[in-house]
Amino acid sequence: MVTRLSTYFLRTLREDPSDAEVTSHRLLVRAGYIRRQAPGVFAWLPIGLKVKAKIETIVREEMAAAGAFEVHFPALLPREPYEATGRWEEYGDALFRLQDRKGADYLLAPTHEEVFTLLVKDLYSSYKDLPLSIYQIQDKYRDEARPRAGLLRGREFTMKDAYSFDYTDEGLDASYQSQRDAYERIFTRLGLEYVIVKADAGAMGGSRSEEFLHPTPVGEDTFVRSAGGYAANVEAFTTVVPEARPIEGLAPAVVHDTPDTPTIQTLVDAANAEHPRDDGRAWTAADTLKNVVLALVALDGTRELVIIGLPGDRDVDLKRVEVAFAPAEVEAATDEDFAKHPGLVKGYIGPWSTAGAVLGEESSTKIRYLLDPRVVDGTEWITGANEQGRHVFGLVAGRDFTADGVVESSTVVAGDPAPDGSGPVELARGMELGHVFQLGRKYAEALGLKVLDENGKLVTVTMGSYGIGVTRILATIAELNNDDKGLVWPLTVAPFDVHVVATGRDAAVFETADWISDQLETAGLDVLYDDRPKVSPGVKFGDAELVGVPIIVIAGRGVSEGLVEVWDRRTGEREQVATADVLDAVARLRSV
Amino acid sequence: MVTRLSTYFLRTLREDPSDAEVTSHRLLVRAGYIRRQAPGVFAWLPIGLKVKAKIETIVREEMAAAGAFEVHFPALLPREPYEATGRWEEYGDALFRLQDRKGADYLLAPTHEEVFTLLVKDLYSSYKDLPLSIYQIQDKYRDEARPRAGLLRGREFTMKDAYSFDYTDEGLDASYQSQRDAYERIFTRLGLEYVIVKADAGAMGGSRSEEFLHPTPVGEDTFVRSAGGYAANVEAFTTVVPEARPIEGLAPAVVHDTPDTPTIQTLVDAANAEHPRDDGRAWTAADTLKNVVLALVALDGTRELVIIGLPGDRDVDLKRVEVAFAPAEVEAATDEDFAKHPGLVKGYIGPWSTAGAVLGEESSTKIRYLLDPRVVDGTEWITGANEQGRHVFGLVAGRDFTADGVVESSTVVAGDPAPDGSGPVELARGMELGHVFQLGRKYAEALGLKVLDENGKLVTVTMGSYGIGVTRILATIAELNNDDKGLVWPLTVAPFDVHVVATGRDAAVFETADWISDQLETAGLDVLYDDRPKVSPGVKFGDAELVGVPIIVIAGRGVSEGLVEVWDRRTGEREQVATADVLDAVARLRSV
Repeated sequence: MVTRLSTYFLRTLREDPSDAEVTSHRLLVRAGYIRRQAPGVFAWLPIGLKVKAKIETIVREEMAAAGAFEVHFPALLPREPYEATGRWEEYGDALFRLQDRKGADYLLAPTHEEVFTLLVKDLYSSYKDLPLSIYQIQDKYRDEARPRAGLLRGREFTMKDAYSFDYTDEGLDASYQSQRDAYERIFTRLGLEYVIVKADAGAMGGSRSEEFLHPTPVGEDTFVRSAGGYAANVEAFTTVVPEARPIEGLAPAVVHDTPDTPTIQTLVDAANAEHPRDDGRAWTAADTLKNVVLALVALDGTRELVIIGLPGDRDVDLKRVEVAFAPAEVEAATDEDFAKHPGLVKGYIGPWSTAGAVLGEESSTKIRYLLDPRVVDGTEWITGANEQGRHVFGLVAGRDFTADGVVESSTVVAGDPAPDGSGPVELARGMELGHVFQLGRKYAEALGLKVLDENGKLVTVTMGSYGIGVTRILATIAELNNDDKGLVWPLTVAPFDVHVVATGRDAAVFETADWISDQLETAGLDVLYDDRPKVSPGVKFGDAELVGVPIIVIAGRGVSEGLVEVWDRRTGEREQVATADVLDAVARLRSV
Repeated sequence: MVTRLSTYFLRTLREDPSDAEVTSHRLLVRAGYIRRQAPGVFAWLPIGLKVKAKIETIVREEMAAAGAFEVHFPALLPREPYEATGRWEEYGDALFRLQDRKGADYLLAPTHEEVFTLLVKDLYSSYKDLPLSIYQIQDKYRDEARPRAGLLRGREFTMKDAYSFDYTDEGLDASYQSQRDAYERIFTRLGLEYVIVKADAGAMGGSRSEEFLHPTPVGEDTFVRSAGGYAANVEAFTTVVPEARPIEGLAPAVVHDTPDTPTIQTLVDAANAEHPRDDGRAWTAADTLKNVVLALVALDGTRELVIIGLPGDRDVDLKRVEVAFAPAEVEAATDEDFAKHPGLVKGYIGPWSTAGAVLGEESSTKIRYLLDPRVVDGTEWITGANEQGRHVFGLVAGRDFTADGVVESSTVVAGDPAPDGSGPVELARGMELGHVFQLGRKYAEALGLKVLDENGKLVTVTMGSYGIGVTRILATIAELNNDDKGLVWPLTVAPFDVHVVATGRDAAVFETADWISDQLETAGLDVLYDDRPKVSPGVKFGDAELVGVPIIVIAGRGVSEGLVEVWDRRTGEREQVATADVLDAVARLRSV
């Protein structure tokens, strides 16, 4: 097919959109792929829709290869199924809610686990029906607090979401693996380098979860990886817990006056100055136990304080802590919180338990006290004495204090050992491409999806959920394939195969460009032909570079000598070839 | 491709869905094409999605042939553009409205005129950019008061909506014709007989409008047509207005006591009994002037009464009247309305104008008085005298009373003359397939879409709007192509080309069916293969009939003699053919 630019609905813009924070957003708008309709809500213009359709085709082919069948659910769904699983509430402000004319509650679905579960419940009743994998490519909605980065985090977005149904754990493992393999094939075909990282499965109630991330410094997700092959996002990283040490023979704890030491640094300095170690080694932040007061805000707004004890050389990583307390949100305690608990002496808080303070005044309120996994029995700490200006030295975990539990609370830093023994980890950044999830039986239980097994017994179905953000991937590809002139699409998803440009006003040039376009079309290629009669070569080249079709053919002055130029937008190389050889030259570039 | 029923996500149901009022709804649910999610909201199952995709492909091909470019707008749109054109209010309860987390107003778009207009305004500025036609295939939302008839009138539905942009009326005519031609090609390819009827253009603010209707007694729309080629829906039908008659020489009007004649029939009887005509002809209902009080309810809820005078042998057609008063809704006046206007003597109301009653008491309120077009100057009427039990005879229009305006108010009946002189009309019923509309400059004016013309002058763009309900058409095809056993798809949109059924438990049967399926696949056909091992032939045949693939191949007992059966689901004919000849037999049926 030949699409002529003189009539095509494509307009490039000279100016960057003012609200564009990232390259893909800026270029996709400027090159005429998308237009903003509202914050995080975009319209797709013809050339953008073509790229999107190509990605969708690749996804569909690999879903079919994985044995998944395509269905299509509405975006508008009734409240009840989401109420049954608790997600009507859990989604909080991120859910678009509305009512119909009769006052019935509806939502715009952010994801479809519930209705897929109900569909299968509706139609299936026997283990013989399983396994089943079904998917859709569909527009989803999330009312992001701050929609940003264009398509990378929109409020409406196109997603491929697949769901698997099995009646045994082994079956789920196989379905999961099948989707995981399909994802590997999809990202390979899309030319997207990826890392598969362990992800937190807790919030969705599942048992196993992995994310496909594209490693890039501009990624918004942080993950860790070891040279030995371990990879996880930070939320899923688990601390290697040191061995407990013998408590016997450890010196008793001593309380010292430590005036004006409300921070770890002032405390370490004072300790080294006033209370040096017997063996001459300096105290460091790692010898102190920091007790941080956090507030958990539940969905119904109720507020609970917890105290987390962690080594003084670490900080609390709120994202990691939130995994433990989901769906509650976690925030730092406020002055108001402290005011309600006079027993909490800011800067001098010591180990605390629901049984009351171990040292100092007993709290009037029971506050849960949780420990970082590194604080094992037998470790000795300098920590607050729950009195203004006083700390305790040599406080022994398991002897002088115990906790109400353990929580993965502290930042992961480069050099931390990978939990699988594969060596120290490094931190890296990545963009999320996809997510595979073993949901297990959470949704099937909440919605009563059971089948009869081989023995005629009702068993609850176990599920997987597998998502790829189609529009997000398109933006990711744009984000990774561009230069200062514009987009540079990979061949697999380029909106056109070849961009033919006729320059000048010479009729011979347009005749040659017509002929070349026809030849390329006959060869089965999809051609964008810049046949605009009164547009300068400079503008045409600029548009070609901005739009980003990877192969450009220029018919210009050389036409009189039987020459045209073939331009590889990816390398920037331009080559003069005989007009008659254009097909071969294009074929060569397409095989690179 | 061969799809094996043993693993395919398809389940037929034995029972009709309890809420199904029409055949298409009943069969599409029973045969596993769709599942209800909420009133008027459906999920598409794999086999349904295939049919839908085939219709969309045909629509896309013909849109491309018409030079229209595909775009895609979100369903979720901000309030402002719809506010600017007044449709935020006009849509009333039919619009799904919602707010985001910041309290900003949004809607789920029922149609996209506004944002297409703004898109073109955003990117185009010169007459040289025009003409332009762009379209989308997209899920739309309307909160129907009573969603019914399955996909025929849902609250979520897929629509192809195209919009044309021109800067001259001639340009609009050409763009309109191009879409109209594309519609003819689409419906022809879909095998859908259609009638193009004149439609009312008023409500959308446009100048020309036609609907594509499929004529069928089960259609929900009424239209009229003449043998001479006139066709219009009832709302768009215009009355042939009789010539005015000379007033001079007509006898003066006389008021008679006509006790107990509150209805046209009692009045005609009394007139014939008590006041017969001089020439002996009987009075008929057509000699009386009926004055009907209606209430117009504006969008803001304000209520205005109007009185409509029409010949007594006609009834008011509220749908036709509503066209004149859109966007106000029209309803019969209530007792309360009458109580507020004691001058209105129920059953004896006479011609009335804003200047007050012509006969009887003067009204305290000015009520608009409008006439049916048939009530031309010089016509004589028996009508109410605005007094209990009294009528006036020989009241002459244009002499004794005048009106505030004329309104198309009365029912159209078979035999009424077509306005184009092509003879008497008959009434028929049809299903709406599509709609083409000359919007004119209404939207461009409201939203400021102007371009520079050849003379450098800013001119307002003129637009067209062209809609096809994709899911509605799918349901219409299902509604028209079925029998008591199930669906019978036309070849062009059938979910599969051939349905191969293996019956019995004989391994040879399955081997033959495997071979046939492979052969058909190799020939480029899309095959549904019922390879279920333990399902009875009766169930398999029943499913095949219900699902409705038009060509069925049965491998059964005859296989041992080298024979299979080829079944034309459309005619019911079954033919024994040699296994080796199956391809030929199928090709023959496909060419029918």
